[in-house]
Amino acid sequence: MRKNEENPSNAIPKAHAAPGTLRDFIETAYAVDLAAWLEEIPCEEAQEQLLALPLPRRTETFGYLQPDTQVALARRLDRRDLAEIVTQMNADDRADLFNHLTPKEQQWLLRGLAQEEREDIRRLSAYAEGTAGAIMTSDYATLAADMTAHEAIELLRREAPEKETIYRSYILDRERHLIGSIRLHQLILAAADTRIEEIMDHAPVSVALDSDQEHVARMIERYDLLALPVIDEDGRLVGIVTHDDAADAMQAETTEDFHKIATVLPFSQSVREASMGVLYRKRIFWLALLVFGNLFSGAGIAFFEDTILAYVSLVFFLPLLIDSSGNAGSQSATLMVRALATGDVALKDWRDLILRELLIALALGATMALLVFPVGLLRGDSEIALVVGLTMLLVVIVGSLAGMSLPFLLSRLRLDPATASAPLVTTISDAVGVLVYFWIATTVLSP
Amino acid sequence: MRKNEENPSNAIPKAHAAPGTLRDFIETAYAVDLAAWLEEIPCEEAQEQLLALPLPRRTETFGYLQPDTQVALARRLDRRDLAEIVTQMNADDRADLFNHLTPKEQQWLLRGLAQEEREDIRRLSAYAEGTAGAIMTSDYATLAADMTAHEAIELLRREAPEKETIYRSYILDRERHLIGSIRLHQLILAAADTRIEEIMDHAPVSVALDSDQEHVARMIERYDLLALPVIDEDGRLVGIVTHDDAADAMQAETTEDFHKIATVLPFSQSVREASMGVLYRKRIFWLALLVFGNLFSGAGIAFFEDTILAYVSLVFFLPLLIDSSGNAGSQSATLMVRALATGDVALKDWRDLILRELLIALALGATMALLVFPVGLLRGDSEIALVVGLTMLLVVIVGSLAGMSLPFLLSRLRLDPATASAPLVTTISDAVGVLVYFWIATTVLSP
Repeated sequence: MRKNEENPSNAIPKAHAAPGTLRDFIETAYAVDLAAWLEEIPCEEAQEQLLALPLPRRTETFGYLQPDTQVALARRLDRRDLAEIVTQMNADDRADLFNHLTPKEQQWLLRGLAQEEREDIRRLSAYAEGTAGAIMTSDYATLAADMTAHEAIELLRREAPEKETIYRSYILDRERHLIGSIRLHQLILAAADTRIEEIMDHAPVSVALDSDQEHVARMIERYDLLALPVIDEDGRLVGIVTHDDAADAMQAETTEDFHKIATVLPFSQSVREASMGVLYRKRIFWLALLVFGNLFSGAGIAFFEDTILAYVSLVFFLPLLIDSSGNAGSQSATLMVRALATGDVALKDWRDLILRELLIALALGATMALLVFPVGLLRGDSEIALVVGLTMLLVVIVGSLAGMSLPFLLSRLRLDPATASAPLVTTISDAVGVLVYFWIATTVLSP
Repeated sequence: MRKNEENPSNAIPKAHAAPGTLRDFIETAYAVDLAAWLEEIPCEEAQEQLLALPLPRRTETFGYLQPDTQVALARRLDRRDLAEIVTQMNADDRADLFNHLTPKEQQWLLRGLAQEEREDIRRLSAYAEGTAGAIMTSDYATLAADMTAHEAIELLRREAPEKETIYRSYILDRERHLIGSIRLHQLILAAADTRIEEIMDHAPVSVALDSDQEHVARMIERYDLLALPVIDEDGRLVGIVTHDDAADAMQAETTEDFHKIATVLPFSQSVREASMGVLYRKRIFWLALLVFGNLFSGAGIAFFEDTILAYVSLVFFLPLLIDSSGNAGSQSATLMVRALATGDVALKDWRDLILRELLIALALGATMALLVFPVGLLRGDSEIALVVGLTMLLVVIVGSLAGMSLPFLLSRLRLDPATASAPLVTTISDAVGVLVYFWIATTVLSP
């Protein structure tokens, strides 16, 4: 999905631009900027402008529109115009549009397409969201192993308009098994009569259809690929994921991580465009859940109400202590969530990391205990100061260890570690912190 | 910087692999996997293995090593071997290595290099970190406007080994001003005698030397570029940023955002590799600062100690209320931070968004007030329940509005909005929440 961003290069014409300026813009702008402009004008006019474009430009621009806009236009266009665009579209964008239509609309559209496109759409749109299959395209270039470099370049020249990229080609055997891959760079550099199988990569990097899109993006990034082939269980080539689609998928995944860490149920719309209903629904879930979590802290407090009555100055330190515990814990949790997501840290590292976390938490807790101790003396007396300092040390350690472990635990349980958010960690360490605090207080302070 | 990741495709040989397996691996593995293996073995052996490789493979593999490893090896190699590698390295990787050496080591290295490399390093390493200049390379391909497509392809064929990419070439005038750009795809498709200036892009997208690397990455992503030219104030081409280097820069920026949101002072090392000292220093800053922030909540509580003594059951709800306020606020803050970072939302959207936030917060607060009201009845009486419910409604609204506004405010003050973290928002809403809670309690409850 391409985001609706402020146009960084050419200024998109304002509503009252002179006809001449507008015409220039429509003719010379990059397709992505043209699409951004179409998003801004009323749907009826956008349809008009779109149909006025020459077909190649029309299809390219359409491909850059936001999914909602594509669907809105698709519903307005007559089937022949839509079929024309859809037939020329990139196979992966086409499958995405298809998945945004209602089943009735999907059937209607399919009836207007040729057999080849119908089958291609059915195949691509069938894959689970978030997998290689869902972001791949079927517009890849294939070559035969016994071709010469010259023949290959000629073939690519002819096929280029139909293919997503000709910078990478794939060599298949008779049963369509992937047996090699080659870069245009290599073809250009080779002598014209060199056979492909002499210079191709015989063991190309590839991914399975059901691979997680994060894994796909990491492979592309690790091997600096322009495109990554996707194969089925038998090793047959079924599609390619280009680096830009992988980058888009990664951006969406990262935004999802941010949502989870914020205890917002992830949603794929733009925050700016989302309706109030959507934002309410996505936020209330965790807020309500955490209310119940916090009742445990309350219960802990209720248990120690006598201590509170006897030493009311203890309440002064309550937010301070439980917040510090939560802050330390959410620092650990967020660091680990990100490290797990980028592959910096693996599940097996847990034991070494928890030991290190214990020592760091000891240092952090001791530092903060020393900071609050004088405050305890000022507000209360040396006994209160001792209680507060000791509690600070303990709750920072407990919070940090809990915060660090939670992403690993969730990952082990095959849940998304990003759910280990600051508020969740805070709620847990609140409950523990309250118990530790008032228990120490009750024990240390003379009744 | 390429991260030290678990090898996703070829298994890196274990320490006691059979010599035959090892030899195979060294000869056939991708350079990035070879580099990962060199990271695992002792430095002395890594040096030996590296020097045993043919020069092209040696330079490619060296380029994939982590900065620390490159520096360690650079210090062991004699200058002639190092100069050989450094001369062949990608210009941007070379500049990065240079920036990791001490000034003395830099001078020592420069003396072993030819004039051309010396100047290139000096130029590239001089740019401020985080800008286009710092991540660009000078290994770009240039063509003359009056060349034919055939001549261009021949030129690229000859120059390919030296260039970062031949898939994009840049057309300069006599004074090296950027006047056009062309894709290899276009050159292949064109008739052999077509003049470049007839088919090139006459107004190529470009960025300035001091552009933020986030802006660079967004341009590359928006226009689906393989490389983006960087120009100086006079419009002269000075380098290109390739899509993979931009992607690495974005990943580093996103990790930095995660660190800030976690109230950890950002650091660019791997979390797994970082020393305890580094992690302590990066975390203690905000933890200590927030301790002082929390003293305000404490002061608020101290002010209302009489109310607490009279109605000790109020303390039961304290964590619940201030946590809910903080949670709602940090939801808003995190959503806005991410939306500002991806360009989903712009500063000018603030007014519309704050109005919408008010309504959503009203709905969220009302829902949560209804949830806690029965608990208030159970724990206390109808007066307590009213106080708690009303407070919940107000603190959720206040927290949400504060959380949403903070990133905008920071951005306006030219600070990084990502500093508007959950713990910061929580600390602020704690202080406000305490005051609101006990003020309402003191007002509503009969003395």
